[in-house]
Amino acid sequence: MIISNNMKKEFEKKEITKKSENFSQWYIDVILKSGLADYAPVKGCQVIKPYGYGLWENIQKVLDGKLKKAGIKNAYFPLFIPEKFLKREKEHIKGFSPELAVVTIGGGEELKEKLVVRPTSETIIYEMFAKWLKSWRDLPMKINQWCNVVRWEMRPRLFLRTTEFLWQEGHTVHQTKEEALEQVKWALENYVNIYRDFFAIDGILGQKSEAEKFPGAVTTYTFEMLMPDGKALQGCTSHDLGQNFAKVFNIKFLDKDGKEKMPYQTCFGLSTRSIGALIMAHGDDQGLILPPKLAPIQIVVIPILPAQNLIQKAEELKNVLKHFRVEIDFTKEHSVGWKFNEWELKGVPLRIELGQKELKENKATLARRDTGQKISVSLESPENEVKEILESIQKNLLERSRKFLKERTREVSNYQEFKEIMKGGRGFIKAFWCRNPKCEAKIKEETKATVRVLPFDAPEEKGKCIYCQETAKNKWIFAQAY
Amino acid sequence: MIISNNMKKEFEKKEITKKSENFSQWYIDVILKSGLADYAPVKGCQVIKPYGYGLWENIQKVLDGKLKKAGIKNAYFPLFIPEKFLKREKEHIKGFSPELAVVTIGGGEELKEKLVVRPTSETIIYEMFAKWLKSWRDLPMKINQWCNVVRWEMRPRLFLRTTEFLWQEGHTVHQTKEEALEQVKWALENYVNIYRDFFAIDGILGQKSEAEKFPGAVTTYTFEMLMPDGKALQGCTSHDLGQNFAKVFNIKFLDKDGKEKMPYQTCFGLSTRSIGALIMAHGDDQGLILPPKLAPIQIVVIPILPAQNLIQKAEELKNVLKHFRVEIDFTKEHSVGWKFNEWELKGVPLRIELGQKELKENKATLARRDTGQKISVSLESPENEVKEILESIQKNLLERSRKFLKERTREVSNYQEFKEIMKGGRGFIKAFWCRNPKCEAKIKEETKATVRVLPFDAPEEKGKCIYCQETAKNKWIFAQAY
Repeated sequence: MIISNNMKKEFEKKEITKKSENFSQWYIDVILKSGLADYAPVKGCQVIKPYGYGLWENIQKVLDGKLKKAGIKNAYFPLFIPEKFLKREKEHIKGFSPELAVVTIGGGEELKEKLVVRPTSETIIYEMFAKWLKSWRDLPMKINQWCNVVRWEMRPRLFLRTTEFLWQEGHTVHQTKEEALEQVKWALENYVNIYRDFFAIDGILGQKSEAEKFPGAVTTYTFEMLMPDGKALQGCTSHDLGQNFAKVFNIKFLDKDGKEKMPYQTCFGLSTRSIGALIMAHGDDQGLILPPKLAPIQIVVIPILPAQNLIQKAEELKNVLKHFRVEIDFTKEHSVGWKFNEWELKGVPLRIELGQKELKENKATLARRDTGQKISVSLESPENEVKEILESIQKNLLERSRKFLKERTREVSNYQEFKEIMKGGRGFIKAFWCRNPKCEAKIKEETKATVRVLPFDAPEEKGKCIYCQETAKNKWIFAQAY
Repeated sequence: MIISNNMKKEFEKKEITKKSENFSQWYIDVILKSGLADYAPVKGCQVIKPYGYGLWENIQKVLDGKLKKAGIKNAYFPLFIPEKFLKREKEHIKGFSPELAVVTIGGGEELKEKLVVRPTSETIIYEMFAKWLKSWRDLPMKINQWCNVVRWEMRPRLFLRTTEFLWQEGHTVHQTKEEALEQVKWALENYVNIYRDFFAIDGILGQKSEAEKFPGAVTTYTFEMLMPDGKALQGCTSHDLGQNFAKVFNIKFLDKDGKEKMPYQTCFGLSTRSIGALIMAHGDDQGLILPPKLAPIQIVVIPILPAQNLIQKAEELKNVLKHFRVEIDFTKEHSVGWKFNEWELKGVPLRIELGQKELKENKATLARRDTGQKISVSLESPENEVKEILESIQKNLLERSRKFLKERTREVSNYQEFKEIMKGGRGFIKAFWCRNPKCEAKIKEETKATVRVLPFDAPEEKGKCIYCQETAKNKWIFAQAY
């Protein structure tokens, strides 16, 4: 066999930049080399490869289950939105117009009316809601859509900012304001639970500032997470739309009392951007670390030698562990060391090493991806032990995230200190703010930090704005953001 | 309470055109009034409402399971394709160029390179395959994508022809021609099984003519179904792409012998168009008839009176039947007759009527949607009986479809007869054809019938072309088509 350069390359260990040395480059390396995604030959777009899409499928499964259980039903609305619909809500079009992709030719002809590729679907969905909604008996209307959306990106970044991305957008219509607010809360709480329980990432939930809210919303709520480089990532959004869209789309219903009324609306979304958070939050110098609950492969079994009895045992073990997502690495071309590196790079939570010596005692070695810890286990009935270790990994990742969030959220009452933190290692800053957009803009200009969120649990206090020293009632969270 | 016109309308029975009287209008009525879909305010597009999307989710679940089991992995490629990619394969661009939607503005600026909204994804996916494929070890590559595609429609029709539709497209790359052909066969067989076992629709599987094949393919295989109006509907496609795309996208791999070779490719797809077939094939004058295996709601429980004990029993029954998709109609506004009509319109396979008299004997009445038959069953443990009835409905629908297909597939050896059938009740015609595209074109011109498929089981025979009387080896299936 002729060994070409191409083939030699196949056997070389995949090198990635160290996370501790160059976080941005590590992020790109780890995505490309672990096979999560690749750059597409279309500006600003990416290809989500099977390993990355497997993550998205696991996220979808959890979230879709929660949505269905809450009576929110999936539907599908058109990709194209007539330009005039987008223009109806003034804040909405103002917010999205710089990011639009526009179809001007269809079926070989110049279109009379330009069609916008949906950046989000409020306007096309609410046009239909106006048509469908007749009486209070039709309420609440609760619809969800899994789809692709397009927002033109000038500075694309894999998963975090791509011109096209995948998401879920929920849209509901309610008889009363109270019911709508309950829905807004429901969505936020469910997102937060998914982030904590499945992504193993903690963060701070609360309300956005006026400048940072969704164009067209009354109030936007979110879950802000802190990434290892001290920058914030918005994990999801849940919007109280009030009657803003109902007014411009003429959505009305006949209430029980025989009067025509205007309903209250909400919308909420979570996107493939969340995968960017997952990658950043847990990985290390060796590569990805995936939380067991979302990992496309939870366990990799590696026979130390290509011996028949080890291969057979690996198959047996896969069968015993059939309730987990298990893969066996049978390949002969690579050394065991290469394989260990490869599966560590891919972030598989648990590795099972099968060797001759141990097998004689009916044992195998388990290696945890999160701690590197090796554990010798009996192969008699390893299911429970494996289950416990996976649960322990899931828990440990969340604890690390909690610890990091706590350590890097600092309360600051002095603008000088604020500036220094933002110049240095960054992080979340908790500080009084007077709610004046001018202070917000100045802080952003001077420190690149924006108001991220007013925590739900923030008490009303007496204080002075970190910037202008005017009276302020609450401490907000500031950070530089993705 | 004031009863407005709007409210009155709510209580009226929904009228639909009779299937037996006006098939095209019935098709539209039944879709709109059963809540499967609605027209969108965007030319050629539709909104798939929750009831219709529920069908698509059930189809997805079955098909996705089969794809995963066969090692075909889901991924996601960009919506936008640079125009130059589409132009590489000449037949491909020729076939698709009249149907394209083109983005010319992005982020507020005129684009230097126009982006086509994918009508299908060969060209963007194969550009990536060329980048990823290195050695024989990477083969076979088996990828699938669930997504939306856009093909500009001049004469749109709900589900059957919409400018945007949803589908799954599988794309595979193989070391050998034989392996690729196995894959082509696998896809076709799995589609056919889904149509027969889940859609309960029979049809004819086989090969397309040169004129009807996929632009860029060596050979296209399909499953042609016959609709009640005697017109054919193509249910899916599975394409042998040979090395056509590999050549123009420069896809190569280093084989075991150290030589650089060109792989063989396949692709295959099934779309929301299939829902159109499902609607047409089984419905009747009363509305939809959905096969139990795909029905979003398999059983509707209707308490005959709004009495507390009946409502309670309905809840108990729903719990007993928890392995089925059950809905209870609790609503108080409508009469029982209205409800029966409504759920018949929606095509729910089985209705359970709960009345006081029967309940005293711990019994209920089951009504089959397919036959109208009513069966009194004991509520002691109705699971098995319900299961058997649903299976029987599924089987009966397939048998009806088989019978219809058989009756309406006629062998013809005389062109006069051919023309008369196409002028009258239509159907499938089995006739010799010499494979000359000129005869195919003439037949189409004169009868609107096209060559649909060369059945897999068609023997090689000696005969004369139905049109030109020249020597012909096989009998092909002709029909007017959707």
